[in-house]
Amino acid sequence: MRMSKMFIPTMREIPSDAEITSHQLMVRSGMIKRTATGIYNQLPLGMRVQNRIESIIREELENVDYQEMLCSALIPSELWQESGRWTRRGAEMFKLKDRRGREYCLGPTHEEVFTDIVRQEVSSYKQLPIRLFQIQSKYRDERKPRFGVIRTKSFTMVDAYSFDLTKEEMDKSYKEMKKVFSRILDRCGLEYITVEADSGIDGSPASIEFMIQSEIGADEIAICTECDYSANLERAHCFDRHFENEEIKPIEEVYTPDAGTIKDLEVFFGKDASGFAKTLIYEADDKRIAVIVRGDRAVNEIKVKNFIGDVESFTLATDDTVREVTGAEVGFAGPIGIKADRILVDSEVASASNMIAGANKTGYHIKNVNFKRDFDGEVGDFKTVSNGDRCPICGAPMKIRRGMEIAHIFEPGYKFSEKMNATYKAENGKTEYIHMGCYEIGTERLTAALIEQNNDDSGIVWPMSVAPFKVVVVPVNLKNEDVVHTAENIYMKLKEVIGNDVLIDDRTGSAGVKFKDSDLIGIPIRITVGRDLRDGLVEMKLRDSDERELISVSSVVEVVRDKISELR
Amino acid sequence: MRMSKMFIPTMREIPSDAEITSHQLMVRSGMIKRTATGIYNQLPLGMRVQNRIESIIREELENVDYQEMLCSALIPSELWQESGRWTRRGAEMFKLKDRRGREYCLGPTHEEVFTDIVRQEVSSYKQLPIRLFQIQSKYRDERKPRFGVIRTKSFTMVDAYSFDLTKEEMDKSYKEMKKVFSRILDRCGLEYITVEADSGIDGSPASIEFMIQSEIGADEIAICTECDYSANLERAHCFDRHFENEEIKPIEEVYTPDAGTIKDLEVFFGKDASGFAKTLIYEADDKRIAVIVRGDRAVNEIKVKNFIGDVESFTLATDDTVREVTGAEVGFAGPIGIKADRILVDSEVASASNMIAGANKTGYHIKNVNFKRDFDGEVGDFKTVSNGDRCPICGAPMKIRRGMEIAHIFEPGYKFSEKMNATYKAENGKTEYIHMGCYEIGTERLTAALIEQNNDDSGIVWPMSVAPFKVVVVPVNLKNEDVVHTAENIYMKLKEVIGNDVLIDDRTGSAGVKFKDSDLIGIPIRITVGRDLRDGLVEMKLRDSDERELISVSSVVEVVRDKISELR
Repeated sequence: MRMSKMFIPTMREIPSDAEITSHQLMVRSGMIKRTATGIYNQLPLGMRVQNRIESIIREELENVDYQEMLCSALIPSELWQESGRWTRRGAEMFKLKDRRGREYCLGPTHEEVFTDIVRQEVSSYKQLPIRLFQIQSKYRDERKPRFGVIRTKSFTMVDAYSFDLTKEEMDKSYKEMKKVFSRILDRCGLEYITVEADSGIDGSPASIEFMIQSEIGADEIAICTECDYSANLERAHCFDRHFENEEIKPIEEVYTPDAGTIKDLEVFFGKDASGFAKTLIYEADDKRIAVIVRGDRAVNEIKVKNFIGDVESFTLATDDTVREVTGAEVGFAGPIGIKADRILVDSEVASASNMIAGANKTGYHIKNVNFKRDFDGEVGDFKTVSNGDRCPICGAPMKIRRGMEIAHIFEPGYKFSEKMNATYKAENGKTEYIHMGCYEIGTERLTAALIEQNNDDSGIVWPMSVAPFKVVVVPVNLKNEDVVHTAENIYMKLKEVIGNDVLIDDRTGSAGVKFKDSDLIGIPIRITVGRDLRDGLVEMKLRDSDERELISVSSVVEVVRDKISELR
Repeated sequence: MRMSKMFIPTMREIPSDAEITSHQLMVRSGMIKRTATGIYNQLPLGMRVQNRIESIIREELENVDYQEMLCSALIPSELWQESGRWTRRGAEMFKLKDRRGREYCLGPTHEEVFTDIVRQEVSSYKQLPIRLFQIQSKYRDERKPRFGVIRTKSFTMVDAYSFDLTKEEMDKSYKEMKKVFSRILDRCGLEYITVEADSGIDGSPASIEFMIQSEIGADEIAICTECDYSANLERAHCFDRHFENEEIKPIEEVYTPDAGTIKDLEVFFGKDASGFAKTLIYEADDKRIAVIVRGDRAVNEIKVKNFIGDVESFTLATDDTVREVTGAEVGFAGPIGIKADRILVDSEVASASNMIAGANKTGYHIKNVNFKRDFDGEVGDFKTVSNGDRCPICGAPMKIRRGMEIAHIFEPGYKFSEKMNATYKAENGKTEYIHMGCYEIGTERLTAALIEQNNDDSGIVWPMSVAPFKVVVVPVNLKNEDVVHTAENIYMKLKEVIGNDVLIDDRTGSAGVKFKDSDLIGIPIRITVGRDLRDGLVEMKLRDSDERELISVSSVVEVVRDKISELR
């Protein structure tokens, strides 16, 4: 391609609305252009990178028999009503009506559509497995679009789906896709970690996010400092922190009128937060749920939601509800005598002794509260892991870091099949649910992540596999006929070998500008045709190194070709 | 690929909701699947054809320096308000709001977005021309979705845009794209005609539709029986039909109380419809427009709209307005003394003599009405061409046929640039508008059109260039090890040569079913491995012929390769 004909509007200044490196560089290198908050268009350079990434993904998915489809982004509400997600998905879903008043959403994801297609065609076990994928725009009405293409209202997702006979078969598909996704991200040149995650699917244990560690990530991850355990804080586990068991003492009501916070209570009782049992009240549909964790812990709402199962709405209770449930002002909730529909007790509280808790009586707390003796409830893990907690696998300390999700694989299992009646007749004649696995990669976000990891002061440093061009030929002086002729010659010959992956910067203008642009847009190999030409030489410089190598004009095609295979 | 792993849900029955051949065959061959009225998904086989077509389009567009982009389908209302199309586009546009109440449309087309991007980057004449395209889903709230993927609410469009300095440069780009589009459709194997069309852009003369002749087409086309003139009826011209000029007679008011229709009047006056001047009243925004054509003609509203220029709304006048303008009951409008803001006179009326017209007086007509003597107005071509009219180029008779648009190229020129202030500084320092050309192909509709033209009783007969697979290998008996082994061997060898374009039907099941399926899905070449194998032979059959050829196992790869190049 000729730079003179390309639409690559580069800029030197840092755009004022771009907070992070990848956003700045994508705008500055002319990869993307904003139309409105959270809405970006891919300009030709960005599109070339997208196409590279999509090719890698297609190739790897087709290798394991996933077949490409394309579903409309316009999805009738009926399908989402069947799955129960029409209301539950909430404000993030774009909804609209057609001229007859029929309701649709713009697909934020496509599980319903794929399940619908498969259930219509599959009747017998002989027709499974089925493996499908699509590369399609997804739409989410983000509350706070941010960071360029990282958090947007419309973005490209590769979503793949496996449909299997049994949980065992689904697990196999899932494990295979874990490898496939790793290979895809490896080939793109991304450094990532795999993180156990919440699937958003009740009771689905298998869920892995492929994340990069990044301060701008929306998630927190617990990472073991010793073994390779890492998990999204949403579902991370840890060993309980135990304290020496004291002798069980009799309960004692204490008047604490001025102690409004845990801090005040620590001072009042001369005990640190870990000695308190903190009670939070939630409303899950029409049920009141009391959750009790230690005073030094935060409740993990995702864990609570997964524990109580299928609910439409789940929120912290209003003050009025708290008063009703506790019979006291807000601030004095406790486990003893609370009028909740369910009482969930974190395992650390269940195993501790002589805790201090609210008395469900305005102005009072109770000392020496003990599980089973003084109150009962369902025991589980309802706490949020924090820095220094011990790894549930090896016991070493964990650290908490921020992470950004690039891809996600999970197992809805028969969740959609059950709601949407996607079944098959098994060999033994019984009707069984189809088991689904879901596998998603956000391609623009992957691009941004690659830039976050591959840049320097001059611009982007593309890995060869996804670079928009693999090599750029720069004639330094268009007035010198020899230079122009040789550069054009090298360009044409390279084109024969690597096709459209070679760019020639045939613009009039200084060599300095051309160098700056090729550094900014991050082309891995630069061939400069300049004054060394009188010795039959041109200069080769790699984007990720400061070294310059002089090579003979006659060998340039061969050298470049070898370099490309070496760097691939 | 292995048929046993593909998701190609073929069916023998004709789906009850499919009225036309292409729709029936796309459903029966498992290419598409409906989610709701007017919303289809591409299943793997359909997707393969789409990908083929898109590859051809990409290649041809990139050959002439068009660069691929991808714009979001979610477009903020502001851009459409700037262009004036937010309200004018009407009910066909899907509109929606985000959680903050900001309005968007789902792009039915992308002129505004591309103009917006280009105007932000271009300041100098040195930056033009720019040539861009995208392959993107478009959304239109069709009043009556129909014919499978032919008229839908969501479909794929390739839209390309040229941005040039001047009208002359734009014309060059336009002419080049006419060739490029012809080459694309030729390569896909489509038989089409190019038709002069209305561009929907006021005063834009250059507009060509690439159409197939088809009874299910939504358009009517005038086609010359001699030369190669053809035009959409919306804008087709013809020579005026002239009659012998009579001696001009004095006007005469005639009482015609019972003559309500042209038919009645023909009997009453003993003159056929061509002797009458018919007056229709339109409301264009707040103006009343009287249009006068001959009694045997229909008014061409598109021509009228283009003539009067930029208006928001344009409709036939209500009865109340007709009464106001004519001062008479409906049915007696005429050119003399009519109180319209503009009077448009079709050229046939202007050149005829002694016509009969309404008197603008209830119950009366006027005889011997003559243009200029009795009334005045703006003369133009406001009539709809009809069967047998003479070609404006060569004078031969034209016929009217139905046609279906597959692609459309047109010149908005500076229409969007003017409204959206997309300018550049010319070499002479003056600020000038950028000139835009637009080029669109609907890819699903192209697929359907290809099937309409390439099918027989057994199914689709794909042209080689767009076939989802080029060759299928059919082992007739999976219990015969020799057969299986040879078929697998041929499959693997073909795969080395033509990659994923070879399919093996490795399903258990009868040869009959396999033949029926491969005929239905239209694979151009079938290699059958069966009983001739004992003589070292396999059978080659082309989809578009009944002949079977026996070829030796050792030569099959070579023969198939040659056949593919021959048919390409």
